[in-house]
Amino acid sequence: MSGGCTRTTPVASAQMLDGSQLFAEPSLNSFLALGRPAWHATREWLLDLVQNENERDAVEPHLIPLSAVTMQLPFEVADYVDFYSSLEHATNLGRMFRPDQEPLLPNWRWLPVAYHGRAGSVVVSGTDVVRPQGQRKAPDEDAPTFGPSRRLDFELELGFVVGTPTELGEPVPVEAFADHVFGVVLVNDWSARDIQAWEYVPLGPNLGKSFQTSVSAWVTPLTLLEDARVEAPAQDPAPLPHLAGGRDWGLDVALEVELNGEALSHGNARTLYWTLPQQLAHATSNGSAVRTGDLMASGTISGPDRGSEGSLIELTRNGTEPLVLPDGVTRAFLEDGDEVVLRANAGSLELGEVRGRVVASI
Amino acid sequence: MSGGCTRTTPVASAQMLDGSQLFAEPSLNSFLALGRPAWHATREWLLDLVQNENERDAVEPHLIPLSAVTMQLPFEVADYVDFYSSLEHATNLGRMFRPDQEPLLPNWRWLPVAYHGRAGSVVVSGTDVVRPQGQRKAPDEDAPTFGPSRRLDFELELGFVVGTPTELGEPVPVEAFADHVFGVVLVNDWSARDIQAWEYVPLGPNLGKSFQTSVSAWVTPLTLLEDARVEAPAQDPAPLPHLAGGRDWGLDVALEVELNGEALSHGNARTLYWTLPQQLAHATSNGSAVRTGDLMASGTISGPDRGSEGSLIELTRNGTEPLVLPDGVTRAFLEDGDEVVLRANAGSLELGEVRGRVVASI
Repeated sequence: MSGGCTRTTPVASAQMLDGSQLFAEPSLNSFLALGRPAWHATREWLLDLVQNENERDAVEPHLIPLSAVTMQLPFEVADYVDFYSSLEHATNLGRMFRPDQEPLLPNWRWLPVAYHGRAGSVVVSGTDVVRPQGQRKAPDEDAPTFGPSRRLDFELELGFVVGTPTELGEPVPVEAFADHVFGVVLVNDWSARDIQAWEYVPLGPNLGKSFQTSVSAWVTPLTLLEDARVEAPAQDPAPLPHLAGGRDWGLDVALEVELNGEALSHGNARTLYWTLPQQLAHATSNGSAVRTGDLMASGTISGPDRGSEGSLIELTRNGTEPLVLPDGVTRAFLEDGDEVVLRANAGSLELGEVRGRVVASI
Repeated sequence: MSGGCTRTTPVASAQMLDGSQLFAEPSLNSFLALGRPAWHATREWLLDLVQNENERDAVEPHLIPLSAVTMQLPFEVADYVDFYSSLEHATNLGRMFRPDQEPLLPNWRWLPVAYHGRAGSVVVSGTDVVRPQGQRKAPDEDAPTFGPSRRLDFELELGFVVGTPTELGEPVPVEAFADHVFGVVLVNDWSARDIQAWEYVPLGPNLGKSFQTSVSAWVTPLTLLEDARVEAPAQDPAPLPHLAGGRDWGLDVALEVELNGEALSHGNARTLYWTLPQQLAHATSNGSAVRTGDLMASGTISGPDRGSEGSLIELTRNGTEPLVLPDGVTRAFLEDGDEVVLRANAGSLELGEVRGRVVASI
C-alpha cells in the first residue's frame, strides 16, 4: 500500500461494480448505510478480484495510480462531534486555559466530554486552510479586536464514521460499536487559539474551530484494524455501567505530524483514555440517533512524553517555547505558507494523510 | 390564517406547480437553494392563484385543511447553531450556573455567543420527546449517576433558515442577511438541566440538548415579517465593525408558552440583544460557509419581567419556586405526560406552534 504502487479508490471500485450505481455516487454514504454484512461482502469481492490471476486483465484497467486522481471527501458528513478523550491533551490544555484551577475538570474522568463541530466545514486532505479572522483579546488588552488569527494551530485526531444509523431513543452500547461504525479517518481539527480562548465560555468552542476541519481522503474499515487492537489504559474511577467495556478497542496506530517537511511529533492512538466505543455509547446514551455519515473525532491525541503532543499549543507550551526548525526558523504558531501533514499507520497499513497549507486571510 | 380556514402547505403547493418537481420533494431545500428572486416569484404566483377569482375552481381542490394533513419537517437541517442572544436569559442562567461570578461573562456583550447543536435531532412539532437519560451529579452527591433526567425543560427560541449558500471564506455582512435567509421557525430547544450542568465545562452543552430539538412545521418567509421589524435594543459597548448594523431587525413577534393548556409565559422577540443579521454575520466572520438548510436559533428568549421567561429553569428560579397550576398541581420541571406548546405571532401572522409531549424514558 506504499510508494508507487497502484491503489483502488472508491472511484475505481465503482467502475468494477458492473450494473450497480452504488459506487458511482459522489460519496460512500449509500454504501455505508447498507451495514456490516454488505461491507464484508464487498471487501471479500474486491479482494477476490485483485488477488485472482484470472481476473487480472479485467481488473488492470480499473487500477488507477493514486497520483493520477483528485481525491474527494469520501463521505457526506451528517453531524460532526469532537471529543476530548486524551488525558494528556486535556491536562495540557487545562493548565494553559485555566491556570488557576485543577487542569482536569471534575466531569472529565466520568464521561468523554465532547461538543458538536461544524459538519459543513469538513473538507478533504489537500484543501488549503485560509487563516480565519475573528475576535480575540489578549490578557493585556482592554477590549477585543477583529482580525486574522495570531495563533493558528492544528490538532491531530482520529475520527470514526457511522454507517448503520439508529432511531431516536436507541442507544448504542459499547458492544455494538462495530455494528454501526464502518471505519476511521485521520482528522486535522484546525484551531484558532486566540479566537477560541475569547469565545469559549460558557458554550464551548465555535468560531475558533468552525472555519475548517480536514480529513483523510479515505475511510479505513474497522475490519482492517483488528490486528491493531490493544487494551486501552486503565480507567480510574471505573466508568458507570453504560460506559463500561470497550477497553479492547485501544488502537495501536502510530501518529506523526510534519511541518514543512520536518517531523514535529510522534504519538500513538493507544494512549486515548476514552475509546471509540465508549465515545459512541456516550453520544447516544441520551437517546440521540446517529445517521450514516456521522463523524466523531477523538479530540487531539497527545502522549505523555515531550514530542508526542498533537498540537502546536502543547508542543510550544502555549507559544512560550517556540520550536526551532532547520535554518534557525522558529514557530510558535502556524504562519502563512506553512504546510502541515498528519500521518497515521498501523504497521504496514496506512490510514492516510491529512495535508493542508495555510494561506493568508482574504 | 386562523381557526377553521384552509391553509396552503408545501405539500399542497407542490400539487399546484404543474410540471415542476420542486415542491414534490420531501423537503423545501431545493426551493430554498434557488434564492431570493425565486422565493419572491413563487410568492407572487401563489398569491395570484389564491386571490384570482378565475382560478378558484382550479385552486380549490388543492387547498387542504391543516387538520387533514400530517405535517413533516419542512427542511432538511444542514448544520444547527444555537445562539445565546437574550440578555435577560444569559443573565438569569449565569446567576444560576455560576452563582459566584458576574452573571454575564466578559465576551457576552462583544459577540453573540453560540455553539453547534445536533442537526440530526431536529424534529417537527408534534413529535413526542422521550425523557433523556444521562449522567448527572447533584451538588450534594459524591459521584454522578446515570438515569432519567430529573430536570427536563423547554427553551423558547426563534430560528432562521438559510436558503442561499456561501463558499468557504465568504462572510455574510449584516446587510446581506435577507439575501441568504429564507425565513424563520419557532424552536423548542429541549434541555435536560441536570445533564447539562454536569457536562458543560469546558466544551459547552452536548447531551443535555442533543436528544431532541423541535421546530414549527412551516418556515415563515422573511418577506412576511417586514411589518414586524422594529429597532432592536441599544447595545453597549458598540459592536465591532463586522457586527455593526442590523439593528433594524428587531422583530416584534409575540411569544407564548403553554403547559398542559395553561399559559405560563408571554414574551416578545424584540427584546433580543443580538439580532438575527448579527448572528449570521458572526457565524460566518471566520470564513465558515453556510449551506441551504442551516438552522440558526436565537437561544432562549426571555423578557425583563416576571412571566416573560422562555424556560422553566428561569420561571421557577432553578426549581426553587415551583409554578402552581390549576387544581394545586405544581411544576419545578417537566413531568412525564406534560405537553408544552410554544406559539408565536406578529399581529395576525401566525409563525406556527411547536408542540411536544413528554414521555417516560424507555
